[in-house]
Amino acid sequence: MRYLFVFLFSCCSYSSVLAQNHVLVIHGGAGSLTPGSVSPGKEAAYRHGMQKALNAGNRILKNGGTATDAVVAAIKVLEDDSLFNAGKGAVFTAAGRNELDASIMDGKTLKAGAVAGVTTVKNPITAARAVMDKSPHVLMAGKGAELFAEKQGCTIMPASYFRTEEQYNTIMDIRRAEQKEQEQKHGSLRQPENPDFKYGTVGAVALDKYGNLAAGTSTGGMTNKSFGRIGDSPIIGAGTYANNNTCAISCTGWGEYFIRLVMAKSISDRIELAHMSLDDAANEMMMKRLPELGGDGGMIGLDRKGNIVNYFNTPGMFRAYIKWNGESAIEMYRK
Amino acid sequence: MRYLFVFLFSCCSYSSVLAQNHVLVIHGGAGSLTPGSVSPGKEAAYRHGMQKALNAGNRILKNGGTATDAVVAAIKVLEDDSLFNAGKGAVFTAAGRNELDASIMDGKTLKAGAVAGVTTVKNPITAARAVMDKSPHVLMAGKGAELFAEKQGCTIMPASYFRTEEQYNTIMDIRRAEQKEQEQKHGSLRQPENPDFKYGTVGAVALDKYGNLAAGTSTGGMTNKSFGRIGDSPIIGAGTYANNNTCAISCTGWGEYFIRLVMAKSISDRIELAHMSLDDAANEMMMKRLPELGGDGGMIGLDRKGNIVNYFNTPGMFRAYIKWNGESAIEMYRK
Repeated sequence: MRYLFVFLFSCCSYSSVLAQNHVLVIHGGAGSLTPGSVSPGKEAAYRHGMQKALNAGNRILKNGGTATDAVVAAIKVLEDDSLFNAGKGAVFTAAGRNELDASIMDGKTLKAGAVAGVTTVKNPITAARAVMDKSPHVLMAGKGAELFAEKQGCTIMPASYFRTEEQYNTIMDIRRAEQKEQEQKHGSLRQPENPDFKYGTVGAVALDKYGNLAAGTSTGGMTNKSFGRIGDSPIIGAGTYANNNTCAISCTGWGEYFIRLVMAKSISDRIELAHMSLDDAANEMMMKRLPELGGDGGMIGLDRKGNIVNYFNTPGMFRAYIKWNGESAIEMYRK
Repeated sequence: MRYLFVFLFSCCSYSSVLAQNHVLVIHGGAGSLTPGSVSPGKEAAYRHGMQKALNAGNRILKNGGTATDAVVAAIKVLEDDSLFNAGKGAVFTAAGRNELDASIMDGKTLKAGAVAGVTTVKNPITAARAVMDKSPHVLMAGKGAELFAEKQGCTIMPASYFRTEEQYNTIMDIRRAEQKEQEQKHGSLRQPENPDFKYGTVGAVALDKYGNLAAGTSTGGMTNKSFGRIGDSPIIGAGTYANNNTCAISCTGWGEYFIRLVMAKSISDRIELAHMSLDDAANEMMMKRLPELGGDGGMIGLDRKGNIVNYFNTPGMFRAYIKWNGESAIEMYRK
């Protein structure tokens, strides 16, 4: 009788995990956002964009879809929204192009897919997903990645689709400033001077009804980046990582530092190997190791129990979540 | 007096570390090598190539050069040797091109540089080093990486330089076999059928007189890889990682699995976070986690105390080392 009770109890708690605990967390980049730095109208537009992304992903999770599907759905919305630096609205490279990177990882199978430096795929996250599902590869770059994505049915757009006047004006402003600087013989990688965000990567992490985690990230990279530069967003272990045994992570920030720190995997390994909580692991990497090395940025994370974290050492970060019970929040500034 | 003794003793042991403990370890890829599978003449050529690489790197370490310089020098020799799948002698992609990847990391500063998909740089490891030393970036790909490398003074060659008849014949053999397979409607990523090696990446890890570690890797990738495919070799944390506090690692193998496992960083994190020895950490990742996921390949590793490891779950791996005291070995087969 006692064993039957234990058995039934186990089944119940298992099925309650199955039926309830889905969570979706998204981010839209980290940067110099402070209250009052964004007009009320624009703030409403950012919030609306994040709400749409939450809705798209949550609809899938609620209906029994997978974490991977939810991550793709949420990121597609952010890619299509020209306010965020991914897909339409991507920033310009120094050569005046839009070069897009994206990656996705499935925490159940540790399968992963990524594309780097694509210029024609409307939704780079769908190309990353195609690399994961339909190729023997993990990372594909440039023209080869574009040809593969087209073959797999991803929507292809002319390069002009990604151009927005706001990002174009930003790169033009930087060029003018650079010309001035060059006259003063002082050269470095100039950061974008868009006051809304410095690192406009978008990302999502999700936990589905089956207890599986997934993570995805998509970006136009850094404004004024060199032709061919690849940041952390398409790098599994740096910008994106998911493992059912630990957590799902998506990062945004000065990608070079996230690559050197192997940020997402370092957080996961602190959970797996040092038995830290997701919160402690993310805190150590983001608030200690990252600034120690001189980098900045932000991240979102989620574990299998539905614990959510976000850390950023920039003034603000676009971030939002929705839980199985309807609890939800959208935030932009430091609390 | 007692304190003076302790002080002198400390100085002596410090200076003995400074003056003696340099170590260089190299690899030339892992594969289906078994005794008798390579002709005596070819075996001698492989050994000669590895000896030349050891000499080039060791000369630098002996003369007080840095681990980073030694890694570059050793890898350049292997890239120039057409027997190894890096630089000259790189395998062909499915599109009939040679696309080269390389990366380097300095364990003292955690600075890193990498290039992916370059087709014109004679020594991709020098391009990776230029990205580390002379750009604000870590990873650059394709044409942008080539233009940067040329600007930094890396030697540029016509694409035809990388072609060797042996690798060209291999890709032609595979294409013929694929045509046959396609008739039987069976498609997958075909592995190279070169009996000498399956994964011909080259790499080096070094410890210099100053106690600093460095790691580097260079490859032509997998024979018959898709256009634009990037493996683990240029990915910091996957194919290459170095950190003075833990170890220096260079991997070779089925890159997709090394990316998904974030192999090199996973070994380092086992040392840092689970306090495992380099040997135990590498053993767990290479002989348990890698085959569990279905991958294969090899790695070399080195820690600050001069401990050397190599693991491979393929029949053989080209590998060699030389220590400060002249102790040296060159091996190809499983012991």
